[in-house]
Amino acid sequence: MDTDTGVALPPMAFNLWGTVEEAKPLGDSPRKLLAKLMGVTGDDGTAARDVPVGQVSLSPVGLAEGHLTALAGIVGASHLTTEDAQRAPRSRGKSSLDLLEWRAGAAGQEISAPDAVLAPGTEDEVLKVLQYCTEHSIAVVPFGGGTSVVGGLTPFREDGGRDYAGVVSLDLARFDTVSDVDAVSGLATLGAGLSGPAAELALADHGLQIGHYPQSFPYATIGGYAVTRSSGQNSAGYGRFDDMVRELTLVTPSGIMTVGQASPASAAGPDLRELVMGSEGAFGVVTSVRLRVHPVPQVKRYEAFTFPDFATGAAALRAVKQTGTGPTVIRLSDEIESSVNLSSGDKVGETQSPPGCMCITLFEGTPEHASSRHEETRNLLLAHGATSVGEDPARHWEQGRFNAPVLRDSLLDAGALCETLETATDWANVPRLKKTVGDALASSLNKSGTMALIMCHISHVYAEGCSLYFTIVAAQQGDPVAQWRAAKTAVTRALTENGGTVTHHHAVGNDHRPFMDAEIGELGVAVLQAVKAKLDPAGIMNPGTLVEAAGAGGASGAAGVSS
Amino acid sequence: MDTDTGVALPPMAFNLWGTVEEAKPLGDSPRKLLAKLMGVTGDDGTAARDVPVGQVSLSPVGLAEGHLTALAGIVGASHLTTEDAQRAPRSRGKSSLDLLEWRAGAAGQEISAPDAVLAPGTEDEVLKVLQYCTEHSIAVVPFGGGTSVVGGLTPFREDGGRDYAGVVSLDLARFDTVSDVDAVSGLATLGAGLSGPAAELALADHGLQIGHYPQSFPYATIGGYAVTRSSGQNSAGYGRFDDMVRELTLVTPSGIMTVGQASPASAAGPDLRELVMGSEGAFGVVTSVRLRVHPVPQVKRYEAFTFPDFATGAAALRAVKQTGTGPTVIRLSDEIESSVNLSSGDKVGETQSPPGCMCITLFEGTPEHASSRHEETRNLLLAHGATSVGEDPARHWEQGRFNAPVLRDSLLDAGALCETLETATDWANVPRLKKTVGDALASSLNKSGTMALIMCHISHVYAEGCSLYFTIVAAQQGDPVAQWRAAKTAVTRALTENGGTVTHHHAVGNDHRPFMDAEIGELGVAVLQAVKAKLDPAGIMNPGTLVEAAGAGGASGAAGVSS
Repeated sequence: MDTDTGVALPPMAFNLWGTVEEAKPLGDSPRKLLAKLMGVTGDDGTAARDVPVGQVSLSPVGLAEGHLTALAGIVGASHLTTEDAQRAPRSRGKSSLDLLEWRAGAAGQEISAPDAVLAPGTEDEVLKVLQYCTEHSIAVVPFGGGTSVVGGLTPFREDGGRDYAGVVSLDLARFDTVSDVDAVSGLATLGAGLSGPAAELALADHGLQIGHYPQSFPYATIGGYAVTRSSGQNSAGYGRFDDMVRELTLVTPSGIMTVGQASPASAAGPDLRELVMGSEGAFGVVTSVRLRVHPVPQVKRYEAFTFPDFATGAAALRAVKQTGTGPTVIRLSDEIESSVNLSSGDKVGETQSPPGCMCITLFEGTPEHASSRHEETRNLLLAHGATSVGEDPARHWEQGRFNAPVLRDSLLDAGALCETLETATDWANVPRLKKTVGDALASSLNKSGTMALIMCHISHVYAEGCSLYFTIVAAQQGDPVAQWRAAKTAVTRALTENGGTVTHHHAVGNDHRPFMDAEIGELGVAVLQAVKAKLDPAGIMNPGTLVEAAGAGGASGAAGVSS
Repeated sequence: MDTDTGVALPPMAFNLWGTVEEAKPLGDSPRKLLAKLMGVTGDDGTAARDVPVGQVSLSPVGLAEGHLTALAGIVGASHLTTEDAQRAPRSRGKSSLDLLEWRAGAAGQEISAPDAVLAPGTEDEVLKVLQYCTEHSIAVVPFGGGTSVVGGLTPFREDGGRDYAGVVSLDLARFDTVSDVDAVSGLATLGAGLSGPAAELALADHGLQIGHYPQSFPYATIGGYAVTRSSGQNSAGYGRFDDMVRELTLVTPSGIMTVGQASPASAAGPDLRELVMGSEGAFGVVTSVRLRVHPVPQVKRYEAFTFPDFATGAAALRAVKQTGTGPTVIRLSDEIESSVNLSSGDKVGETQSPPGCMCITLFEGTPEHASSRHEETRNLLLAHGATSVGEDPARHWEQGRFNAPVLRDSLLDAGALCETLETATDWANVPRLKKTVGDALASSLNKSGTMALIMCHISHVYAEGCSLYFTIVAAQQGDPVAQWRAAKTAVTRALTENGGTVTHHHAVGNDHRPFMDAEIGELGVAVLQAVKAKLDPAGIMNPGTLVEAAGAGGASGAAGVSS
């Protein structure tokens, strides 16, 4: 059943963020800072970028030959592979825990992998695959860009008392068309497997853009954005991804469901789009998304500001959003983040000048509109304690906007622990939540024997609140996986008890699943399980994520469960 | 079991929109127009405002004394009544079909009514009522302001093969508190039974407002807005009601579910708020809503414009929304609606001057913000073919903004048929949908023997499309209920086949339920049924609306169904 080149390799290396070509050792400034702050002194042996996929042993292919043959019969033999080089990059996402697990794999630990990778080409093939897998209790993990940072891609062979006959990765890469472009209304239908850059390139031919730029933009896909409810850096101007979605096609074991087709807005009952968005592959496979798009902006205007302290800056961002002055990007780094120039790309680690909290703004649109929004926003920021520091810091930020995740691998190789976490809350609760999260992180990491550099910024603003994005750097101590799990558990508990969401835009995956009771309540979880039972009666869709399938093998009608 | 004054009478008369005091005969201008256009000549006998509730016979109280006693034991005897004067106003909403049915009732037809009216005071009482009714198969119809125009309040004694032991109206009026006002973040928690005006009055004490003004504003309630996904006239500035909702508490037979509490925005799975909104009482009872509020605007600026034709005006509105120039109100009446001055309140029927399509704009906010939005919007409108006609038409519109529904009763009494319907679609599809709907209405009404005055406006705009709101006046012919049902059926079919939603902001109720398969597909309906089966296992919640409860008496665990 091993095959040829019909399945495209995903662009990122199996064990890093990004490609081997992009990967590099830690630069001098961050290296010096690490040594100074936490005694981390250098490379820790073999860098991940130098580990070939053949060095890691994956779980053996455990799916019976008969199933492999049947599945190849559905998608075509050239679109199914069991090669390790294809299984590995689809075995994990890109959380720090995932990246640390690969480093342990390089040192000999066996890494669980899907048994096979399928790359179907039509909705009908996807439907048939799901129906076959339902009948034979084979778990299916949809794969887009592979950028999950919450354990949304880990292949589970059992969940909630169900054992699966195997696990397959269902790659959306062949769903890559752009169609039904309506430039008047500002809509376009995109295949779920299109990466962000490929989608923007295709739409640019029509003079249109989506304008959704999460840090995963170089690799993540349209379908992935939709099922995780991601939010991009231009959210102030264009909204979160879930604001952009007009229509979705979800292929489920129970059939194909298209949601949101009727109109821009409707009162025809509950909004089913909002059940599909955030479902993370646990209800079915999103194959196609109809998105709200807009003309490529004619101009971009830049300005950066500093504030004397985070509270002053936060109050100014609140005024901007509540008044509605309309920037495309507005971000505020706290004192610590500003002081290490985290947003500057290549200057990370150098002492920042001038001091204070850095605030980046961008304004896009027609010349009149961009200038009108810039004017009103600047006046309001200055009235709220900002000092302008000109264009350059904002231009620098834009140039380096997708680089930070690459830095993380360099840090991990150097013996530092590096991870991010994010939440959101109401403006009035920001100081308390920020302090609570910072304290929980510091306390847990200090207990493990290291000081921690805890940086924070606001990058998504709402009328009633904002997101808080934390970047944590500490020295690895003992087993860094256990070290981080302890910190993550402590902080997530602190979040849910202090008015924060467990995730503003990274999704639930497996990592946040234990906290869903606290997040949405038992009845909320039961409702999601009822929906899953209707759409995925055998509980084969992305086990281990979102919510457990209810009732293994019994009332929900699951078939073919093997033990 | 008949009781006293513990249950407040709803403010509207049982058989009219509004109060008897507000009701009045048709004015001279509209009367002349009706006579000229369609030969309708005058009052048709007794005006609805002159019919006392005692003149109409309601279905007898059919719920057994034992159940009435038990329910009184839960809510308190003074909060349960079986008096006709209380049952009547909670027997129907305010669609034209409802109003016509009352006129038939005045002429002797028996009108089905709920057996009893309950007014619980706490979430726990609501929960106990729902649990009791689940056990004994008693249908429950939640009642807020009674403004449903889609048959969302009709008491059904059987649905989908289930017979109910009785039907009770559950009045939310005692859920009338305002609490947890967070003026910094712009949030407040409101009891679901608060009317719009009462809510705005209470919030004004804090310098805050909601800013949601549907035509039902004088009477509709916070809970009603939430479960119907209503949209108000200031939607351009502040969004639809579903954009304003941060958190909801839903009391269901299966327990109490709070959704949306975590944060301004979250990626923690599907958004359960969007399952509750639009559920129209079919999943449970919304008792409390936490809303996004904003400071009462400091200034309001007005300007009206005319366009030479509807297409030019629509293109201009599209430019305003897609650019994001930010008006609070923007509306465009088509040629026919403009020509009868429908938006002018007292001048309806007079020949409009100047001719063309009337466009109303309003700008609210701080002086700087309102003036900045006004400037940018005006410039864009003028560049797209508008001619300014100054402030007065906009001020007139604002003064008469809630009056139109009262006019409808005057028309019905005069022998005219009058109703509204609304939809939404993408900008590129607006001309086709407008023509298709207009043709379907005209064709059906012409067949019944009358010409029809069909007026249309845009009052809600989105980046990719807009709503279309039709007001229809014709002469009653034969049985006006049958006459309207035929027209409504023809037009709804035309809508679903031509890219329109069956309802942009009026909801599904019973009237639109037959079209849900076309609107959201069979699997979509099945998903809603699965959610209902989890939250309302005996299918007692507002039967006849949204979707049928699945499987009467069987697999969904319904108990106590009597035949």
